Amino acid sequence: MDPRIREHAAVIANHSVDLSEGDTVVIDAHPVAEDLVVALHEEIGEAGAKPLWTVKRAGKRAGRAHLRTADGEFETPEHELALIEETDVYIAIRAGPNATETSDVDPSVNTAYRKAYRPVTEERLGKRWCLTQFPAPANAQLAEMSTEAYENFVWDAVNKDWDAQREHQQQLVDILDPADEVRIVSGDETDVTMSIENNPALNDTGTHNLPGGEVFTAPIPDSVEGTVRFDMPLYQQGREVTDAYLEFEGGEVVSHEAAKNEAVLTEILDADDGARRLGELGIGMNRDIDRFTYNMLFDEKMGDTVHMAVGRAYDESIGEGNEANDSSVHVDMIVDMSDDSRIEVDGEVVQENGTFVFEE
Amino acid sequence: MDPRIREHAAVIANHSVDLSEGDTVVIDAHPVAEDLVVALHEEIGEAGAKPLWTVKRAGKRAGRAHLRTADGEFETPEHELALIEETDVYIAIRAGPNATETSDVDPSVNTAYRKAYRPVTEERLGKRWCLTQFPAPANAQLAEMSTEAYENFVWDAVNKDWDAQREHQQQLVDILDPADEVRIVSGDETDVTMSIENNPALNDTGTHNLPGGEVFTAPIPDSVEGTVRFDMPLYQQGREVTDAYLEFEGGEVVSHEAAKNEAVLTEILDADDGARRLGELGIGMNRDIDRFTYNMLFDEKMGDTVHMAVGRAYDESIGEGNEANDSSVHVDMIVDMSDDSRIEVDGEVVQENGTFVFEE
Repeated sequence: MDPRIREHAAVIANHSVDLSEGDTVVIDAHPVAEDLVVALHEEIGEAGAKPLWTVKRAGKRAGRAHLRTADGEFETPEHELALIEETDVYIAIRAGPNATETSDVDPSVNTAYRKAYRPVTEERLGKRWCLTQFPAPANAQLAEMSTEAYENFVWDAVNKDWDAQREHQQQLVDILDPADEVRIVSGDETDVTMSIENNPALNDTGTHNLPGGEVFTAPIPDSVEGTVRFDMPLYQQGREVTDAYLEFEGGEVVSHEAAKNEAVLTEILDADDGARRLGELGIGMNRDIDRFTYNMLFDEKMGDTVHMAVGRAYDESIGEGNEANDSSVHVDMIVDMSDDSRIEVDGEVVQENGTFVFEE
Repeated sequence: MDPRIREHAAVIANHSVDLSEGDTVVIDAHPVAEDLVVALHEEIGEAGAKPLWTVKRAGKRAGRAHLRTADGEFETPEHELALIEETDVYIAIRAGPNATETSDVDPSVNTAYRKAYRPVTEERLGKRWCLTQFPAPANAQLAEMSTEAYENFVWDAVNKDWDAQREHQQQLVDILDPADEVRIVSGDETDVTMSIENNPALNDTGTHNLPGGEVFTAPIPDSVEGTVRFDMPLYQQGREVTDAYLEFEGGEVVSHEAAKNEAVLTEILDADDGARRLGELGIGMNRDIDRFTYNMLFDEKMGDTVHMAVGRAYDESIGEGNEANDSSVHVDMIVDMSDDSRIEVDGEVVQENGTFVFEE
């Protein structure tokens, strides 16, 4: 077994979910990730915990077969709910033999199933949980990389010194947390300001998402002014939107365009009122994520990037008494900040061309 | 997908577990059996049932990793127990990439784990359940067959007209059920008589075991007299015992020998008092099982064979007021009845050289 797989398992066990004696554990993974599942079973054995391997969200070929033969009406699976209620730690490993396996499942059937399944999903969120990635060949293909290069990419991003990463990111948290206003400038087309007054800045260091590596907060919904050209592609329901451009007035998107699949962008913004306002401002700080791989678990943590999400804000990023943007959508879009770019906080430059003030 | 896989899934769903709308279903299978798991998800979707795929007893590489790293003390996994308590249908598919995957797990650790796990195992037995086989290459290897020949073998044995098979077997049940004495004669060395008075004869037709295909009952423990040469090999804990020979007096094995690994046979018989007496007499009637494959799920149902198990009797094969042989072991051994052999019931020949009287 590649020794980086056992490192990955150790990071999950010791850093992300704090595996302890007696823990009941569910690992959900497709068998293409069997090596990581086996390495996790070693961690579980050593910890004196209790493993169960399921192939649920990971079992897309079986899931597709179920959804395509079902009549479109679903009930919550009581046995899965009972399982998760008695589970302490839930580890989901992304990886499959075909990243487009569910492309011919009727979206409305999928939506109906997700709705019935929601009590299970919500029960999971109350547990110690972690979502991570195994570098299977089909996932390398989605990233347009060789399998070996993708393995290097994933394990460089995951098998880090997370304590050092936390300390590094904390420097930005300390700047953003008490700040009132953020301005993002990049190239000729991106110059946007927003208030984050009294909203906390959060340090994402690889617990629920592995890899982690971002600092994020929420803009005050009505405060966003200016324009943004998102120069990284947006991948939505199998369709790629390139060079999305948004213009904000009073927090609201008043005009938009895209080089490719503009209609998809329009559809997102028209979902509801909240879909035209920002719910998140995130700053990617995982420098081992040095390329776009069509996988938001990685893309949004890319070093030298900023992402803004239209739609729903995360509760934990809203300060007491502040308004939280609400929406049925949460769509992240990314700006490359490595060149001709800067982040200003309360008028001070804190990052220029990808380099933070605390790195100089 | 091989169309026989969908037939196999349909037999499981419609014949073995009577899959119904709203059923919560657990399928335990290693991914080498993914095609059958997918076909079962189609059946589940059509039925309006609720699937969960686990890799527990099938996940031997992960299981081995857990048991080899654990300290040898185990608790019942509460989350798995909660899952099974809320499960209506449990389907276990045998198949793996390496049939000897757990050969380096300490037997005492394995025993300790099984003991802690027993509440889950027992909870399963109260459900609609089915144990079946998928013809993976490693299982073909264990059977000393090509993968294609083993596929033909498995699906011929499984994808049968089970109603016709039940009717065929019922003819033997009707003979054995009211009978008092059975005599098995084969070649020069096998001539054994036993009482089955008042013990019911049972018709196994592919519900809990798929394939099924035997009629079985229990001998009265003290009644067995004579000698048996088991000419099919016995496979026990990875060791092959050939040409086992037992001599019975007053129901007890008074002498024994074997051509190979006699010590293993001795060990079995010395387990406890009940291990020296018979707990089962079974007559294999699945003619599509025409060879020995080192897999008792198939071997004991082979056409033109008789098997006798030393050790524990099944409760359902004991008539009211009759004694049930009790033991910690239950080891089946097989006699080939295709040539120079006969079964007599109350003095009447009911099978000669593999042909039953009702087949003439």
